[in-house]
Amino acid sequence: MPAPAMTADEIAALLRAEFPQVFHPGCGLSIEHVGYGEVRVRRSFRDNHLRPGGTISGPAMMELADFAMYVAVFSVIGPQPRAVTATLTINFLRRPAAGDLVAEAKVMKTGKRLIAGQVTLFPPGADEPVAHVTSIYSVPNDNAQI
Amino acid sequence: MPAPAMTADEIAALLRAEFPQVFHPGCGLSIEHVGYGEVRVRRSFRDNHLRPGGTISGPAMMELADFAMYVAVFSVIGPQPRAVTATLTINFLRRPAAGDLVAEAKVMKTGKRLIAGQVTLFPPGADEPVAHVTSIYSVPNDNAQI
Amino acid sequence: MPAPAMTADEIAALLRAEFPQVFHPGCGLSIEHVGYGEVRVRRSFRDNHLRPGGTISGPAMMELADFAMYVAVFSVIGPQPRAVTATLTINFLRRPAAGDLVAEAKVMKTGKRLIAGQVTLFPPGADEPVAHVTSIYSVPNDNAQI
Amino acid sequence: MPAPAMTADEIAALLRAEFPQVFHPGCGLSIEHVGYGEVRVRRSFRDNHLRPGGTISGPAMMELADFAMYVAVFSVIGPQPRAVTATLTINFLRRPAAGDLVAEAKVMKTGKRLIAGQVTLFPPGADEPVAHVTSIYSVPNDNAQI
Repeated sequence: MPAPAMTADEIAALLRAEFPQVFHPGCGLSIEHVGYGEVRVRRSFRDNHLRPGGTISGPAMMELADFAMYVAVFSVIGPQPRAVTATLTINFLRRPAAGDLVAEAKVMKTGKRLIAGQVTLFPPGADEPVAHVTSIYSVPNDNAQI
Repeated sequence: MPAPAMTADEIAALLRAEFPQVFHPGCGLSIEHVGYGEVRVRRSFRDNHLRPGGTISGPAMMELADFAMYVAVFSVIGPQPRAVTATLTINFLRRPAAGDLVAEAKVMKTGKRLIAGQVTLFPPGADEPVAHVTSIYSVPNDNAQI
Repeated sequence: MPAPAMTADEIAALLRAEFPQVFHPGCGLSIEHVGYGEVRVRRSFRDNHLRPGGTISGPAMMELADFAMYVAVFSVIGPQPRAVTATLTINFLRRPAAGDLVAEAKVMKTGKRLIAGQVTLFPPGADEPVAHVTSIYSVPNDNAQI
Repeated sequence: MPAPAMTADEIAALLRAEFPQVFHPGCGLSIEHVGYGEVRVRRSFRDNHLRPGGTISGPAMMELADFAMYVAVFSVIGPQPRAVTATLTINFLRRPAAGDLVAEAKVMKTGKRLIAGQVTLFPPGADEPVAHVTSIYSVPNDNAQI
């Protein structure tokens, strides 16, 4: 397993510089671990993620999974902030209770322009995932998304 | 084509009551049209949806698509706020410029517990979609998401 | 709408030459219509597509949808037999009875290397689809699939 | 980990009885391992799976993945031959060379009516997968597929 192309601190610094709207102090997102193609990120609980019945909203989980893949992409190809999601499939498995969520992303294939991975979401310490995601990121040379 | 199970105004009132964190004055989401299994919703542009390069973020598009499906579910089965997304697949096709986005959802199948649909996202007036989504919603009788 | 890059007859001749195992007299597949990015193909019924309950098997439907996308790819970029499926998502909507199936594919985006489309499957003359597919094809310059 | 609801031999016998068109001597499919929600199946190489360039066709891989999920469903809920695929997403990662393929399926969630899992496909002994699948099976009480 090679070393990651960027450390957690380097990725956090890049995101703060490039995505101040998304990744800023108080945003609730944090990067817990970065290995080569294997990362773990976390979202702190916020009330506006709740849905009726006290569960966390689907879009909040999709956003966290997409963030995890984004960090995983940096871990294999280095600073490429214009990498974009080409496709994402999420299966919601269980309703998470109100609380933090952790996402573990694993790169399955690093191609020249496309990077495929999967992400598992679960409450910290839980045995069973609340959602599973597969996604392909595109590292563009041009304006086309795919 | 039967009449929708709820009108746009009825759905908006339900969402304001059940999702005040998400659907409130100033949230930027609006319901433009509701037919039976065919709806159109819109998200006003907000700066925090931007990604490097001036494009709208993937999660903002996923959230809008999921909202469109949620409204479409109400249009066929009436007030069921605990309906939840079981699965969602998005293909990002073109990078939208900064601006409003419209989502048109169309129900493909209404089963007893599961409702399948597709959503097309595009800037108002554009000929070509920026993203395409298929999704299955679950109308639960229990705590299980699927 | 431009003219298709290849006609139905040209695509059939290419497939007979390149895929004699798949596309041969008696294979049951036929190309009914080819427009630019919009094609219709058909599979004749065969007993070995049946599943318990008399319905057509999922893999037979996936194969037909993939074939439809393959033909649609030729209709926009011409003879590229090494184009390959990068990703495919199918939602099964209704159980088809024993009989022929038609697949209509529509290209949603033609990029330099990736082509995204959707496919609807239904029995000839039916109003409602039995399955819906989205897929991305890759037009490779190298050995990587994505 | 509980014991599987059916053994590999029991599942093979059920499939021979219910799917003689698909699972018969000489079909090339075999069940190598069955644990509770974790199974491994194999497809022997056949010439008609080839595509230009000597790679195995996408539909042959989708069929194998779907078969693996089907066996995994039996391993958790026992003999339910009318269980059907509700949705399937495949990401093709690498082009397999001509040869056998193995599929390992793992159930992620067993609900009352829906079972979600993932499948990894690879050549026997390979380190890296050639494709990854997520799928939801429906255990129907009625004629609706979803």
